[in-house]
Amino acid sequence: MPSTHSPDAPGPGRRSERLPRVLAADLAALPDGATASLSGWVHRRRALAGVTFLVLRDRSGLVQVVVREPETVEQLQSLPEETVVEVVGAVRHHPSAPGGAELVDPAVTALSEPAVAPPTELWRPAFGAGLPTLLDHAAVTLRHARHRAAWQLASASLRGFRTALAELDFTEIATPKLVGTATESGANVFAVDYFGRTAYLAQSPQLYKQMLVGVFERVFEVGPVFRAEPHDTVRHLAQYTSLDAEIGFIRDHRDVLLVLREAIAGMVQAIRTYAADAVELLEVRLPDVPAEFPVISFHDALARVGADPDEPDLSPAHERALSEWAAAAYGSDFLAVEGYPMSKRPFYTHPQAPPPDCAPDDPRREPGRWSNSFDLLFRGLELTTGGQRLHRPSDYAAALARTGQSPGPYAGYLEAFASGMPPHGGFAIGLERWVGRLTGAENIREVTLFPRDLHRLAP
Amino acid sequence: MPSTHSPDAPGPGRRSERLPRVLAADLAALPDGATASLSGWVHRRRALAGVTFLVLRDRSGLVQVVVREPETVEQLQSLPEETVVEVVGAVRHHPSAPGGAELVDPAVTALSEPAVAPPTELWRPAFGAGLPTLLDHAAVTLRHARHRAAWQLASASLRGFRTALAELDFTEIATPKLVGTATESGANVFAVDYFGRTAYLAQSPQLYKQMLVGVFERVFEVGPVFRAEPHDTVRHLAQYTSLDAEIGFIRDHRDVLLVLREAIAGMVQAIRTYAADAVELLEVRLPDVPAEFPVISFHDALARVGADPDEPDLSPAHERALSEWAAAAYGSDFLAVEGYPMSKRPFYTHPQAPPPDCAPDDPRREPGRWSNSFDLLFRGLELTTGGQRLHRPSDYAAALARTGQSPGPYAGYLEAFASGMPPHGGFAIGLERWVGRLTGAENIREVTLFPRDLHRLAP
Repeated sequence: MPSTHSPDAPGPGRRSERLPRVLAADLAALPDGATASLSGWVHRRRALAGVTFLVLRDRSGLVQVVVREPETVEQLQSLPEETVVEVVGAVRHHPSAPGGAELVDPAVTALSEPAVAPPTELWRPAFGAGLPTLLDHAAVTLRHARHRAAWQLASASLRGFRTALAELDFTEIATPKLVGTATESGANVFAVDYFGRTAYLAQSPQLYKQMLVGVFERVFEVGPVFRAEPHDTVRHLAQYTSLDAEIGFIRDHRDVLLVLREAIAGMVQAIRTYAADAVELLEVRLPDVPAEFPVISFHDALARVGADPDEPDLSPAHERALSEWAAAAYGSDFLAVEGYPMSKRPFYTHPQAPPPDCAPDDPRREPGRWSNSFDLLFRGLELTTGGQRLHRPSDYAAALARTGQSPGPYAGYLEAFASGMPPHGGFAIGLERWVGRLTGAENIREVTLFPRDLHRLAP
Repeated sequence: MPSTHSPDAPGPGRRSERLPRVLAADLAALPDGATASLSGWVHRRRALAGVTFLVLRDRSGLVQVVVREPETVEQLQSLPEETVVEVVGAVRHHPSAPGGAELVDPAVTALSEPAVAPPTELWRPAFGAGLPTLLDHAAVTLRHARHRAAWQLASASLRGFRTALAELDFTEIATPKLVGTATESGANVFAVDYFGRTAYLAQSPQLYKQMLVGVFERVFEVGPVFRAEPHDTVRHLAQYTSLDAEIGFIRDHRDVLLVLREAIAGMVQAIRTYAADAVELLEVRLPDVPAEFPVISFHDALARVGADPDEPDLSPAHERALSEWAAAAYGSDFLAVEGYPMSKRPFYTHPQAPPPDCAPDDPRREPGRWSNSFDLLFRGLELTTGGQRLHRPSDYAAALARTGQSPGPYAGYLEAFASGMPPHGGFAIGLERWVGRLTGAENIREVTLFPRDLHRLAP
């Protein structure tokens, strides 16, 4: 907490009639006996014979305030948990106090009105209510230490993602979320009344990030994407945060995997640096990010899990089994599965050249059957989808014809390819899935601020 | 360009059948005579007697390729501008070459098909077409150096905003863009078909960032906001990028201005650091950010521009005149106007206490007439709106009653205040307005990637 740059501290032009605010985490750095002013929430009150403990919470942590003066003890009875207060008192270093220091002889001032009781006691170490209470009362329940910590993992991850890509010379972009045609997948789009005509909410920045590879070569965007998911599952949301990147001048999807590896390593590093307390509180086991992700082909992955070789996709059970195998075989929490069937991938997907070492009758020799795309599995769940995209205009014409689509709605996009696009590819990471796997959350809604789904549009 | 971490360079597991890619900006660092492989777009071809110059463009800049071999000269005739190529040749240091080095004896390989001609010649220093061409063909026209540079100012600004706030201990948040009630202003909202009922696109993260002050104290969000602006103006868009911050435990809106000053200083610093080439190309005069923004009251601002003291708002002409005055009086490109009438501000606005030095008959003594809110003017235009918000639950009840609103739709929001919220406030910066003022763009659409408005939903 760089207090010298903070409006917590007096600075140029600050009026000085009030003591500067001290954060809980900084209390022990003050000399014994110093007068300190702290502000925060009444986290907990504990009345014993002859002494009442007031635990104050601010963004940096907790501090114990020792109250002996009878008038202040009585005053506290009308300042319930979650009331916002300022406490001015004397610093006392004390080895048994949390953080090594506590505040004594306090004067307490309420900064708002007495708080109503939250739907569950927020000071208890475990969150004492179920998912509906968490979500219905999110404005208050998110204050619980475990939920704050989960989002701190998310916040640090965003920072690490951007830092890693900025170091690789990526340009951040901001693309339209209102689009004229429901092009990318057709299904599961939200329709918007757009000045009397119909627009759609973008399901991903896919087409825009590709076009912008033509401008900046390497681009990323962190932003909301929208899926009108008609199913009520523990891992789908109507809005989630997508961490998107797209990279020009690649050789194939393996180059995309190298960048994805750097992005994820940056996210893990940022969590270590900026969210260490959250990692400790939630007992998160952070993954080691291997220098390269182990890769298995879709064809071999099916064989390994004993599935029919004509299966078009991996089931959740297959993904779990493959992750277990990667952990055992490579000591890796990550496994890239490459070469998904073209039939299961969007029209812009680049086909795979058959591996040079496969037998003449190997099904991988079938032209256009397999793709240069991948899924990255993390601890049993698909975390990322990515791959190489088509870049030749004639390939786009063929792909649209093959999938029965008219080029008209894609005119602005196809123009990029007609006017020269390099071989390129990219990926998208779902923020909430990432944090959900880190924390072991059973439901992705537990790690989302104000989730949106089939049933939920508030708060 | 940290080539050791870049997929441009060979790394662990990279297949090495191809030479590693060298960027244009790095060419002069190679020894004279070295063989180098560059990839990029054919920026321009110039055929002279006996020699053809191929100017190659990549994300780092331009490089001149000298072609004398007749077969390669002929080959270039079928590789028009914007075609994507790989060029392998010999480095020649040459004082008259742009960047100090050029490539000679090249072998050229097309990486895609020959490009069709862009709607305007992209190699010309000035953008040679009007706004409709720029926007209709954005996938290609954004490649023009001046448009790339304008967005590089935006991209660097985003980075600087986040860095400044992260240093002040802010937590990044991601809030819902689909909301159940068109609460904040009522007008200009987009309606969405949300699983058979009506949702709305969020006009700002205002209510959510306030609730999250109760969780993290200091929060920021960078994301899209949506306004169904029915008017076709040069400074409004249906979607723009909002840089939002909200801060707990302030004394009043002046503390918000201190944080806003740090955010803008961080944006300017990041532009200097990461977008110096764009600043030079566009001849941007970067503002000096004063240690504190000069402040004038709305009341005094009206008097200074000779407006009626009962005017409820400042007109664009007033804003320009005030900015001119601030430049002359304070040498500042920024001016904060504080104390707007409550009647023009949203219901959550905190009223102003009358200044202690004003006369007994001063209109500023009228209770509840003026607010603790501000606009920040930058070079004649409102860049930011911000201020202190209400934090006591009883004040919210009164404010909703005063504005004739039912508390029902705000239930999830009001719960935050009932359960204890500190004095707080915040601001929002419009990214496109910021870049527009920096570049002097006449229309905000010139500095937006794929803008959305009343008439435009593509590309």
